[in-house]
Amino acid sequence: MIRANDPSLHSWIQIAPESDFQIQNLPFGIFQAQDRDPRVGVAIGDYVLDVYVLTQHGLFDMLDVEDPTVFHRLYLNDFIALGRPIWRQVRDRISELLRNDNPEIRDNRELMAECLVKQKDSQMLMPVRVPNYTDFYSSMEHATNVGTMFRDPANALLPNWKHLPVGYHGRASSIIPSGVPVRRPKGQTKPVDVDSPIFGPTKQLDFELEVAFITGKSTELGTTITTLEAEEHIFGMVLFNDWSARDIQSWEYVPLGPFLAKNFASSISPWVVTLDALEPFRVPGPVQDPAVLPYLEYSGEKNLDINLEVTLQAPNMSQEAVICRSNYQYMYWNMNQQLAHHTINGCNLEVGDMYASGTISGPTPDSYGSMLELTWRGTKPLTLPDGSERKFIHDGDTITMRGYAERNGVRVGFGEVKAQILPAI
Amino acid sequence: MIRANDPSLHSWIQIAPESDFQIQNLPFGIFQAQDRDPRVGVAIGDYVLDVYVLTQHGLFDMLDVEDPTVFHRLYLNDFIALGRPIWRQVRDRISELLRNDNPEIRDNRELMAECLVKQKDSQMLMPVRVPNYTDFYSSMEHATNVGTMFRDPANALLPNWKHLPVGYHGRASSIIPSGVPVRRPKGQTKPVDVDSPIFGPTKQLDFELEVAFITGKSTELGTTITTLEAEEHIFGMVLFNDWSARDIQSWEYVPLGPFLAKNFASSISPWVVTLDALEPFRVPGPVQDPAVLPYLEYSGEKNLDINLEVTLQAPNMSQEAVICRSNYQYMYWNMNQQLAHHTINGCNLEVGDMYASGTISGPTPDSYGSMLELTWRGTKPLTLPDGSERKFIHDGDTITMRGYAERNGVRVGFGEVKAQILPAI
Repeated sequence: MIRANDPSLHSWIQIAPESDFQIQNLPFGIFQAQDRDPRVGVAIGDYVLDVYVLTQHGLFDMLDVEDPTVFHRLYLNDFIALGRPIWRQVRDRISELLRNDNPEIRDNRELMAECLVKQKDSQMLMPVRVPNYTDFYSSMEHATNVGTMFRDPANALLPNWKHLPVGYHGRASSIIPSGVPVRRPKGQTKPVDVDSPIFGPTKQLDFELEVAFITGKSTELGTTITTLEAEEHIFGMVLFNDWSARDIQSWEYVPLGPFLAKNFASSISPWVVTLDALEPFRVPGPVQDPAVLPYLEYSGEKNLDINLEVTLQAPNMSQEAVICRSNYQYMYWNMNQQLAHHTINGCNLEVGDMYASGTISGPTPDSYGSMLELTWRGTKPLTLPDGSERKFIHDGDTITMRGYAERNGVRVGFGEVKAQILPAI
Repeated sequence: MIRANDPSLHSWIQIAPESDFQIQNLPFGIFQAQDRDPRVGVAIGDYVLDVYVLTQHGLFDMLDVEDPTVFHRLYLNDFIALGRPIWRQVRDRISELLRNDNPEIRDNRELMAECLVKQKDSQMLMPVRVPNYTDFYSSMEHATNVGTMFRDPANALLPNWKHLPVGYHGRASSIIPSGVPVRRPKGQTKPVDVDSPIFGPTKQLDFELEVAFITGKSTELGTTITTLEAEEHIFGMVLFNDWSARDIQSWEYVPLGPFLAKNFASSISPWVVTLDALEPFRVPGPVQDPAVLPYLEYSGEKNLDINLEVTLQAPNMSQEAVICRSNYQYMYWNMNQQLAHHTINGCNLEVGDMYASGTISGPTPDSYGSMLELTWRGTKPLTLPDGSERKFIHDGDTITMRGYAERNGVRVGFGEVKAQILPAI
C-alpha cells in the first residue's frame, strides 16, 4: 500500500504548490455550506471534501466505521472517539480516493460535484467540542523573556521550570474558530501611579502564538499515560491564538494564575492537522539539562519543525505586515512529556480536549510570539509599513497566524487563524 | 398558591425532622436503580422521587415542558437549559404532588410504588455534565491564613484580594460524585532540604471545604452579567471538596497557579439544592472595605446561612470525628459578585458550569476549612478520638462534608459528599 504521507503522491484535483492542503495533509474540520448543514470535511487544495457524502455513496463500506453518521455531526468528537486505527483507515481511504490514479470520484462528474465544495463557498466551524483546555508554558525563550520583564533578569526562569512542563487550566467555553471577531475586553487594572485599581478597556491587548494538540482517547481517572503511549492519544493539532490582556493579567494573576486576562477569547485554526500527517517533520528536541525525572524521559525525535508566522493588518493597510516568524521546534517540553506530566497524578483526559503549547518564542527578537516580547513591554514599539507604531494591538487590527511544515518538496500546512479586534462596548 | 418554601408545608411521606430532604427542599439529581436506568430524581425524606415516571403518568401535562424526556437523561443539563420559569414550575408541581392534602400520588398505591425509590436502593451519579469549572478564593479568613503561612504575615492578603474575587480555572473532567474513592496522587515535590525535586505520592493530601453553584443559562461571548442579573443564571448548589496535594502545589504553582495539585479529583454532593429552596436563608454579607468598583456593587442580602461540617473517619474508628464546623455566610465575595466579575470581560457561561467558592474558613481555628489551616501546615496536628494524630490525610481515611440551612423550623440540607482515600499505586 502507498502511504498517505508519500511525497510522490498526486491528486487528480489541481492543487497550487503553495497550498497548505496537499494530498499528504488531509486535515479534518467541520464545515457548512449554503446547500448542506454542518458535517465533517477534509481540506484538499481549494476545496472541502464532504466526508459524509462519501459514506452515503458507499465509498467507506470497506472501513470499520459502523455508524457513518459520525461524519454528520456538529463536532469531530464522535469520529475521533473511534480511535487511532479508524482515523488512519479514514485518512488512508481518502488519500486513495483523491489520488490521480483512482477513478472512483475522478471519473464520476456527478459525485465529484456533490462531494467537493469550494472553501470560499463554505464556512468553517469549531472542529471539536472542547471538554477541557490546558495551556502549557513550554517555550524557554518565552518564559525567560517574561521572567526578565516582570520579575528578575538574573533569575528569569523560576526554579520549577526546567523540572516540569508548567501548565494551567484555561477556559474552554471561549475558544472560537478563525474569523470570529474579538471584542476588546474590559476589566480591572492597577496602573503603578494610582493607589486603587481602575476599570476600563484593556490598554495592553496582546496575542500569543501557540499550537495546540487535541486528544482523541479518553482515559480513566486514576490512570497515567507514559511518554511512549502519548501519541496514541493525540489526534491532531491546530494553531492557537491565546489572546491576552497584559494589564488585567498583571493585576489579577497572583496567587492563582491568569483568569480574566485570558478567558475572553482564544482563537483556533479550523482544520485539525493529524499527527499522522505531521510525522515526516519530526526533529530532535533540545537537550534537557538538568536531567528530567524518569516519568518525563522520552526517546526519539519528539519535536516538530513547523514554521509559524504572525501578521498584523490595520484597516488602513493594503496588506498584512509580518511581525513574527517562529517555529514550533523551539519547544523545550514536547507533547509526550506534557501528556505524561498532565496525567502523572491520575488526571483523566477526554476526547476533544485541547492542550496548547504556550507562547512559542524563538531565540531572536523577531521570533518572539507576543507583542509583550516583540515590543519589550511597550518600550520598543513596532513600526508598521504605514509608519504607525504598535506597543500592543489597536482596535480594528487583524491578527493572523499561519503555520506549515515542509520537507522533501511536501508541504503540510495549517491554514490560518485570523481575527479582527472590535472596540470595547 | 402555597409557596414551595412555606414552613407550614407537610408531605404525606413520613420525613424525619433531622432529614436534609424536607418538602421545602426538593433538590434535583441523577439516579439509577436496579429496575431503572439513569434519570432525574428529587430527594424527599429517605426516598428519591422518579420525575420521569411522573411525566409518563401525565402529572406534568399542565406544565410548559414540551419534551418530558429531558427527565430521562444522563445529566440534568437539558432540563436546566429550559430556564428558571420551568425550574420553578417543576419544583412547585412536585411540591404540590407531595403535599399531605394532595391525593394524586398519595391515594394511588401503584403509582406510589413506581415513582418512589428508596435512596438506599439507588445510586447517585454526577448531576450535571460540567462544561467549565472555576474555583474562586473568596473567604478572607482562608486567604489570610494561607498568605500568613506561605508568604508574609504582615501582608497576608495580596493587594488585589479586596478589589476583585480572585479565581482560576480548574479541571472539569475530574469532578466526581460522592462515594467514588480518591486515589492518592503522585507527583513532583521539592522538599526544602534537597537540591532537586523528588517524585512520589503526595505527603500532604488535604481537603478543601467549599460550596459550588451551577449555572443554568448560557450567555453569548462578549456579553456581561450584572450583580442584579446573576441569580437568573444560577440553578442551584452542591457541596464541593476541592482535594489538594499541598506539597505538589507549593512546587508547581508559580507563576501560573495550581494544576496537578488539584486536578486529580474534586468530589461533589450529588443533590443540587436549588437557589429557590435557599432563598429563605439569605443573610447580609460583610461590609466590603475598601469600596468595590461599580460593576461589583450589589444590593440586598446575598450571603447564605449554610452550616457546614467536615468529618474524618479512619478505618479503625467506629464513628466519624468532626474536625471542622464552618458556615457559607463567612464569604467575603458573594455569588452575584463572582458572576459579575467572571463575565465583565465578556467570558461566556454554559449550562452546567460549576463555580466553587474557595475554601470556606471561619474566624475561629475550629472553623478552618482545610487540614493545612486546621493543623497550621502540620505544626499543630489534630488528635483524633482514637488517639492518633493527623497533619494531613492518611490512606484509608474517609472525609465527609455535610451542609444544611435552618430557619423557622425548616431545614434544607445538601446531604453529603464523602470519599475514602486509597493508597497510591
